[in-house]
Parts: sequence; C-alpha cells; structure tokens
Amino acid sequence: MGLELYLDLLSQPCRAVYIFAKKNGIPFELRTVDLLKGQHHSDDFAQVNPLKKVPALKDGDFTLAESVAILLYLSRKYETPDHWYPQDLQARARVDEYLAWQHTALRTSCTRTLWQKMMFPVFLGQQVPPETLASTLAELDRCLQLFEDKFLKDQDFLAGSHISVADLVAITELMHTLP
Amino acid sequence: MGLELYLDLLSQPCRAVYIFAKKNGIPFELRTVDLLKGQHHSDDFAQVNPLKKVPALKDGDFTLAESVAILLYLSRKYETPDHWYPQDLQARARVDEYLAWQHTALRTSCTRTLWQKMMFPVFLGQQVPPETLASTLAELDRCLQLFEDKFLKDQDFLAGSHISVADLVAITELMHTLP
Ligand SMILES: N[C@@H](CCC(=O)N[C@@H](CS)C(=O)NCC(=O)O)C(=O)O
Ligand SMILES: N[C@@H](CCC(=O)N[C@@H](CS)C(=O)NCC(=O)O)C(=O)O
Repeated sequence: MGLELYLDLLSQPCRAVYIFAKKNGIPFELRTVDLLKGQHHSDDFAQVNPLKKVPALKDGDFTLAESVAILLYLSRKYETPDHWYPQDLQARARVDEYLAWQHTALRTSCTRTLWQKMMFPVFLGQQVPPETLASTLAELDRCLQLFEDKFLKDQDFLAGSHISVADLVAITELMHTLP
Repeated sequence: MGLELYLDLLSQPCRAVYIFAKKNGIPFELRTVDLLKGQHHSDDFAQVNPLKKVPALKDGDFTLAESVAILLYLSRKYETPDHWYPQDLQARARVDEYLAWQHTALRTSCTRTLWQKMMFPVFLGQQVPPETLASTLAELDRCLQLFEDKFLKDQDFLAGSHISVADLVAITELMHTLP
C-alpha cells in the first residue's frame, strides 16, 4: 500500500497537507475521516493516529501525526522544490520559527475565535459571555499584529520572496477564521 | 560578535537550548534575561526577539526565536552528531512529530499545572478553585499517558535508542513540573 493521507478537508491543518501534496504532484490515497461524524474516534483510526486527530499519514507500515511533521516528511521524501523548506540555514530557521510559534499563537487564537463566534452560538445554541469574546478577539488582534510585524513584515511570503510550508500553515488558518 | 543566547535558566525551553549548546561544545555568549525582573520586556531585548520571550538567539545580524527553531538551527550550523536530529527519514519525522505535538499538549499542561499548583497560591497568594485544578491535573494525566503510549513506548528515547532534541524538550518540561 502506498501513501495514505487521513484528512477532513474542513480542518485547517488537513488543508495545508492536502494543498502541499496536490501542488507537488505527490500520489496519495485520500482517506476521509469525517470529524462531524466522530470518525476520528474509531478504533481503526486510532491505529493510524493514537492522538485521534487529523491530519495523519500512513506510508506502508509507517504512521505519522502532526501536520508540521507530515509536511516536512513529504518535502523530504518527495524532494519537493527547495522553496517549500529551503536548504539555506537562515531561511529554513525562519520557516521553523513560524511553524513553532503558530501552535500556541495564531492557531490557538483562530480556533478559539471560531468556536466563540460560530460553533458555540450557531451550532450549539450556547451564548458566549461578551467579555470572553472581547478578550479572545483582543488576543487574536495581538497575534495578527505579531504575525505582520515579526513574521511577514514587508515580504511576499513568511520566509522571504518564495512560498514555503509556513505560508500554507498560516493561510489555511487565516482563511478559516477571517472570512 | 559570535553566537549569543538570550536565556533565563528558570525557563524550560531555555534549559533545553542551554544543555544542547553545552553538551555539543558550541561556543556562545550567555546573555541572561531575568524573567522575574521583567527584563524580557526591555526595548533592547525586543530588538532580539519582538515576541518578548526566551530563549532567543543572535548570531551576527541574524536573530531567531522559538526553542525548537533554535535547536534545529544549532544542530545544522554546528553539524552536531546525527542522533540529535537524525537524517533517517522516519526517525527525523518522529522527532518533528514530538516537537510539534508538545506545544499544545505536554508543555501547555505542565505550564498550567505549575501556575495552578505553585505560582498562583504560593507566589501570588491566589487560590485556584479545586475543580479547576482537578481538571488541569486530569488533562496532565491524559498528556502523560499519550506521552508514554504514543511517543516513548518501550523505547529508551523518544525517537528510538538514541537521544534527540525531542528528549531535551521533553525532559526539561517534565522535570520542571513533576519533581
Ligand atoms: N497540532 C495538530 C492539530 C491537529 C488538530 O487539532 N486537528 C483537529 C482538526 S483541525 C482534530 O482532529 N480535532 C479532533 C479532536 O480534537 O477531537 C496538527 O497540526 O496536526
Ligand atoms: N514556544 C516558545 C515558548 C517560549 C516561552 O514561553 N518562554 C517563556 C519562559 S518559559 C517566556 O519567555 N515567558 C515570558 C512571557 O510570556 O512574558 C519556545 O519554545 O521558545
């Protein structure tokens, strides 16, 4: 069995992996894991990813979780063009820095905003206290400001003039939350 | 000016970077940033790291934040022994997977536990509601279980039989919170 990607395209990190694989012509079988149906809690999926989250990868006997690790694995295994994860020491460090920062910053903020502005009130009929929402939006603003001032600056892409995996991770998060 | 590392050795990710640099004989100037004195909020430090967190690195004109990015930068620049960040595709992916997972899992849980068990009650004289603490500790247990079942398993180290940067990131977090 070749490469299998376990994804739900509703999920931001899944879309980053999907776009990367498609754009680079990497052949894979799409295994859809429907989050809304709770398929990530199935025993079958736990064999692939005991963390019970998407995305997940299976390549023969090898399984891998975490979108960042999956993107880097694919870039190495399929030797994708350099700009995705540049060999240059400093450019690569810029990509790594963004990939590390976003977990507890932009991603956390975007996810919290989405839940408080949409999932709770619209899907679950639960109101979010206005002061909770206000503090979530203030934190999102702070993250977006750092995103611009520290990471993107006046560049076209996060690591300079070419697109990298960091941009895919960023854009899928941003477009999910800031329509 | 050679390599400068901006650290407070009270900080878990700083200790991971410090141990890595020392163990590999990497020459650096230690620039102490005293968190308890708020030195990370100084204008001088913001020039090095606009995120205002430690650890941070300065190497000539190049500055870098995020412990994970710093560890990988040092491993590449100083060509440290392979086991720290193995060339092998699957072993490296295991290291990347742990480094990505820990941000929102073990690190978040350990930090929250530390604040609720020590910083708030002992240093700030604020009590934490018992049900808040209970849920934090339950989440920590869940993380530790995943740490064992999914990551460490029956291996000596996270990526197999040799120590990698993932182990430094893990051990500094664990020893900080679970004395
Ligand atoms: N750090 C992980 C996050 C993965 C993640 O949070 N996936 C979500 C969908 S966006 C998920 O599977 N959630 C299901 C759950 O937490 O129960 C990554 O980057 O892959
Ligand atoms: N993801 C960052 C986390 C850095 C971090 O949270 N550093 C803490 C010390 S452990 C800090 O500087 N805190 C100061 C603050 O947040 O104001 C890394 O791994 O380097």
